[in-house]
Amino acid sequence: MSRVAIVGATGAVGQTFRQVLEERQFPATEYVLLASERSAGKAVDWVGGQHTVKPLTADSFADVQFAFFSAGGSVSREYAPLAARTGALVIDNSSAFRMAPEVPLVVPEINADAARQHQGIIANPNCSTIIMTMPLWPLHRHNPVRRVVVSTYQAASGAGARALEELESQTRDVLAGQPAVPSVFHVPCAFNVFSHNTAIGEDGYNVEEKKMILETHKIVGDGSIAISPTCMRVPVARAHTESLAIEFSSAIEESAAREWLGAAPGVTVVDDRAQNRFPTPLDASDRDDVLVGRIRRDPSVPENRGLSLICSGDQLRKGAALNAVQIAELFI
Amino acid sequence: MSRVAIVGATGAVGQTFRQVLEERQFPATEYVLLASERSAGKAVDWVGGQHTVKPLTADSFADVQFAFFSAGGSVSREYAPLAARTGALVIDNSSAFRMAPEVPLVVPEINADAARQHQGIIANPNCSTIIMTMPLWPLHRHNPVRRVVVSTYQAASGAGARALEELESQTRDVLAGQPAVPSVFHVPCAFNVFSHNTAIGEDGYNVEEKKMILETHKIVGDGSIAISPTCMRVPVARAHTESLAIEFSSAIEESAAREWLGAAPGVTVVDDRAQNRFPTPLDASDRDDVLVGRIRRDPSVPENRGLSLICSGDQLRKGAALNAVQIAELFI
Repeated sequence: MSRVAIVGATGAVGQTFRQVLEERQFPATEYVLLASERSAGKAVDWVGGQHTVKPLTADSFADVQFAFFSAGGSVSREYAPLAARTGALVIDNSSAFRMAPEVPLVVPEINADAARQHQGIIANPNCSTIIMTMPLWPLHRHNPVRRVVVSTYQAASGAGARALEELESQTRDVLAGQPAVPSVFHVPCAFNVFSHNTAIGEDGYNVEEKKMILETHKIVGDGSIAISPTCMRVPVARAHTESLAIEFSSAIEESAAREWLGAAPGVTVVDDRAQNRFPTPLDASDRDDVLVGRIRRDPSVPENRGLSLICSGDQLRKGAALNAVQIAELFI
Repeated sequence: MSRVAIVGATGAVGQTFRQVLEERQFPATEYVLLASERSAGKAVDWVGGQHTVKPLTADSFADVQFAFFSAGGSVSREYAPLAARTGALVIDNSSAFRMAPEVPLVVPEINADAARQHQGIIANPNCSTIIMTMPLWPLHRHNPVRRVVVSTYQAASGAGARALEELESQTRDVLAGQPAVPSVFHVPCAFNVFSHNTAIGEDGYNVEEKKMILETHKIVGDGSIAISPTCMRVPVARAHTESLAIEFSSAIEESAAREWLGAAPGVTVVDDRAQNRFPTPLDASDRDDVLVGRIRRDPSVPENRGLSLICSGDQLRKGAALNAVQIAELFI
C-alpha cells in the first residue's frame, strides 16, 4: 500500500517519471501529481485513468510513502524536509541536498547500501555524473581509477523542455534562412556547440563540471579520483554523450575491461569497429541502459594503465527519473 | 609573375581556396582551375572575370608556379609528382604525402622553416590537427607539452559538401516527422553525435585520431608528446571544436598561458567567464583565427602542470585552404 507523490509532474523529468513508473509497474496504490499553481488543475491521462494535477502545499504529503521531487532546488529546499517529516521517503532530483553529509547520493548499481542510511531524503545525482559513473564503476571495482578526463556532448533537453523547443524552432528558423535568436540559452544552439550554460567559478569551472567532480567522489566513495571535466552542449534533442580517458592504478587489459563492462547491470556495450557502430545519443534515447563503446587502450598513459571509451545515456531516464525510481525500488 | 593552379577547384575546399586567394590578393597573374572530367567546362565567376574549369591532365601544369591540390589522395598521388617535376610548388591538402619523410608538413605559424626543405611538394596537415596545434604550439614553446587528451566536435562539412547537404536535408526531414535516412555518413547526423566516419584500426583508433597523433609529432618536431584523441562528429555545418586537457613539463600559470595565447599569431582568445562567452563553431566559421577559451588550470594534474581549454577553428579556412595559401606566401 503506497501513496506516491510526484512534485513537478508536468515538467520534462516529471513526464519521464510517469512513463518509467508505469513501465516498471511501480506498486503504487495512488499517485498524487503536484506542480506549481501555474500547472495545477491540468488533467493528465496516465496509468489507466485521469489524474488532476494539484498545487503543491505543505499538506500535500499526508500518507505519502514515496515523494519524487523534480521541480528545482528552491522547491526541494522548501518542501522536501516537510515531506520527509510527514513520513515520506523523498527522492530528490534537484541539486539542493546532494552534497549534504546526512543525505545519501545514490546510483543503485553503485552504492545501494548508502541509500539505507537515509534520514528521509535521498538525492538523485546530476545526469552527466550518473552517465559517467555507470561505466566507471565496474572498471573502478577491479582496478581503482586514478584520473578521468571527460568531455561531454550534452543534449538540449538537459536544460528543460523549453530548451528543447528552442533547439527545434531555432533550427527551423536557420534552415529557412532566418537568424538564430537565442532565448533559453545564452548563444544560438542550432547547428552550434557551446560551453555548458551554468555559471563559471573563479577556478574557471562551471557548475556542471563541479558536480561531475564532487558527486562522483561521493557516489564512488573515493575522493582521491582526479577528475578533469569539460561540459559542452550540442544540438541534440535527448541523451548525453561523454568521451572518457581513464587512468587506472595498475595495467588494464582491454579484453578484461570489455568483460567487466559487458557484465555490468545497466550498461550495454555497443562497440562494432568493423561497422563503425558505437554509442550515439539517438540510440541511447528512450533506453534505460547507458551505452558504452570505443573501448580501447590509451597508449598515452604509461605502464598500460590507460583506457578510453565513449558512453551515451538518456539523461531523462538513467540520468534522472529511472535512477530515482530505482532508488525507491530498493525500499519495496 | 605567377601562374597558380587549383586542383579540385569546384569542391568545398576549392571554393574556400578561391575565396581566400581573392581576399588576400594573392599575386597571381593567372589562375588555372582544374577538376575532374565531371566538373570540367563549368564557368566560375571569380576575381573579376569568368574562369572555365579545365579537366586535369598531365599537361595542366606548364608554367605553373603554385599548384594547390585538394581533390583527394589518389589524384594527389598521381598528379602532384607530375606538377612538381614540371616546376610547380605543390601544396597538397590530401593525406597522400603528409607522413613522407621528404615532404614538409607545415603550419606556417609553427614550422615555416621546414617548408624551405621541400623537394617540390609541401603537405597541408589534417584540419583537426592544425586547429589543435595552433593553441598548443605557443604553450609548448614556453613549457614543453608532455601529454594532451583531446576530444573533438567536428562539423559535417569536414566530410565534404555532400555531407553538409545531408545534414541540412536530414534535419529538415526529422523536423517534418520523417525518418533520418543516412547516406554519406554511416549513421544519422541530424540531431546526433557519432564517432568519426573513418576506419578503425586494430588498436581501436580511427584514421582521424591517428592523424592527430602522427601529424602533430611531425609539425611540432617532437615525437615524445603523448596524445590521446577521440574524434567525433556533431550536427554543425562548419568549424571544428576541440576540448584539450594538456599536461606540461613543469608548473604552468594560467595568466602566463593566457598571455602566450593572446600574443600568438592566428589565435584569438575568447574567454569571458562572466558572460559565458567562449569559442563556438558558429563564431569561428568564416574566420581565419582559431578561437581559444575556457583557459583554466587543471587540478587533476599534479604539480600545477595541467591546463585545459577549448578551441574552435574553421576547418575549411585555417584547417585547409588558408593554411595552404599561407604556405605559398612563404615563397613570395
